[in-house]
Amino acid sequence: MHVTIIGLGLIGGSIARDLRRTGFASGITGVEASAVHCRQALALGLVDRFEPMETAVRGSDLSILAVPVDAIVELLPRVLNAAGDAHTVIDMGSTKQAVVNAVRLHPRRPRFVAAHPMAGTEDSGPQASLERLFQGKLAILCDTADSAPDAVAAAENLFSEGMGMRLLRMTAERHDLHAAYVSHLSHVVSYALALAALSKEQDDQAIFAMAGGGFASTARLARSSADMWEPIFGQNRAALLEAIDAFRTQLDALRAAIDASDSAQVRALIGAANRIRDILPR
Amino acid sequence: MHVTIIGLGLIGGSIARDLRRTGFASGITGVEASAVHCRQALALGLVDRFEPMETAVRGSDLSILAVPVDAIVELLPRVLNAAGDAHTVIDMGSTKQAVVNAVRLHPRRPRFVAAHPMAGTEDSGPQASLERLFQGKLAILCDTADSAPDAVAAAENLFSEGMGMRLLRMTAERHDLHAAYVSHLSHVVSYALALAALSKEQDDQAIFAMAGGGFASTARLARSSADMWEPIFGQNRAALLEAIDAFRTQLDALRAAIDASDSAQVRALIGAANRIRDILPR
Repeated sequence: MHVTIIGLGLIGGSIARDLRRTGFASGITGVEASAVHCRQALALGLVDRFEPMETAVRGSDLSILAVPVDAIVELLPRVLNAAGDAHTVIDMGSTKQAVVNAVRLHPRRPRFVAAHPMAGTEDSGPQASLERLFQGKLAILCDTADSAPDAVAAAENLFSEGMGMRLLRMTAERHDLHAAYVSHLSHVVSYALALAALSKEQDDQAIFAMAGGGFASTARLARSSADMWEPIFGQNRAALLEAIDAFRTQLDALRAAIDASDSAQVRALIGAANRIRDILPR
Repeated sequence: MHVTIIGLGLIGGSIARDLRRTGFASGITGVEASAVHCRQALALGLVDRFEPMETAVRGSDLSILAVPVDAIVELLPRVLNAAGDAHTVIDMGSTKQAVVNAVRLHPRRPRFVAAHPMAGTEDSGPQASLERLFQGKLAILCDTADSAPDAVAAAENLFSEGMGMRLLRMTAERHDLHAAYVSHLSHVVSYALALAALSKEQDDQAIFAMAGGGFASTARLARSSADMWEPIFGQNRAALLEAIDAFRTQLDALRAAIDASDSAQVRALIGAANRIRDILPR
């Protein structure tokens, strides 16, 4: 199968590595706006060649959109315009409602499968791409009733056979609400934590001498790029605001208990938070 | 040198492993309130024997307090009462002002060195102890002018030769303010994040199916025990409240920009937070 990958960053580059390794793709054409990323992707052997988007789509069996979610919304109608009746288009975006809404009335909507492979790192660009980044992780397919059955089957095959992922289906609406709580909120909180420590550092250069494993863990996501995350926050605004407010309610309860020196209440809140031990993978 | 370790949890147990491995201790006596932890520590070979606290201190050259900070404040005067003129007492607490204040007027204050080895995991108990937990990490010595020079030298030797740590000196006040920003705040934020996700889970069992690496990273510290962290929050209340409020200011700025769909401002805040890339160890 010949595959077109639109966007050869961390995600697109890592997909290319897996599709070559597993033999899922017999050939890979890249579409990429950045000349630097084109050169890097070719040097790394991620793709066979680069072509203009419409040419690449017409010359392949399956197209993957692995660009930031604002670019997905912009490019997806054009990709569908160029897609033939047997072609499958799959996006890898971290939001799903804005993406499906962008092609709700498109005549080729059934050729599109909305997906979110839940894997990544805080780095970006082709040189950050990794083999087996997706191995054992979860790929979510959304609103599959709006896609043709053979397109859904092609997407499932890509994620399970080509990328080694587990599969889960849900509505785009439910995806976005869950993603707000367990992914997007974590990024907002991590950015705020980094900003708070950096603002304090202006008074005292030595503060980060003491930053250890705990700070590194909670502030790791604050390395993530604005190009990827600003559009996610914008597209998932309503659910994210709900999640931020739920977080603030809990933060305010902890702050009030600490302020009141109410040891019993602080212990009760920590004890309730400890239930995350039963839920989080180690 | 014969060493007494008071508290054989994650920290005390890990110190015991290192002091045996490096030959720093010729023998180790344990002091431990929990019968279960006593049995586990003996089975793991962490200590040679357990004794009542005063007996253990009188029979050794150096005593290490590795219990939660509320217990340090309670036990430290008794340990100093039992310490001879050549005995050195060192605590491992995550707060320092309450600890030094607890023995400010004690006649044997010069035998005590206030310290904070900045290493740990979110687990607890002797069975969570690890070899080389402290290797290459930072040990902070506070208010060393109030300690006898030979006691400070013994502490420096313990951390560098016995545990492989780097050393830094600062006042207890400065330590507590910095620790609030780069350690204690991270725990408060992680607890609040876990509580927010858990509160949402009550409506929807499936939410954690989607919890990936980002959530796991920011919520990892929410596994940490109330026995250790409630007293830290209590003793470092003023500095921690300042840090929480600095964090809330940044969170509110991000929330306002997202709420207003102000893409330029969201990008500016993320860009400022990205400066953490230059500072955080990978």
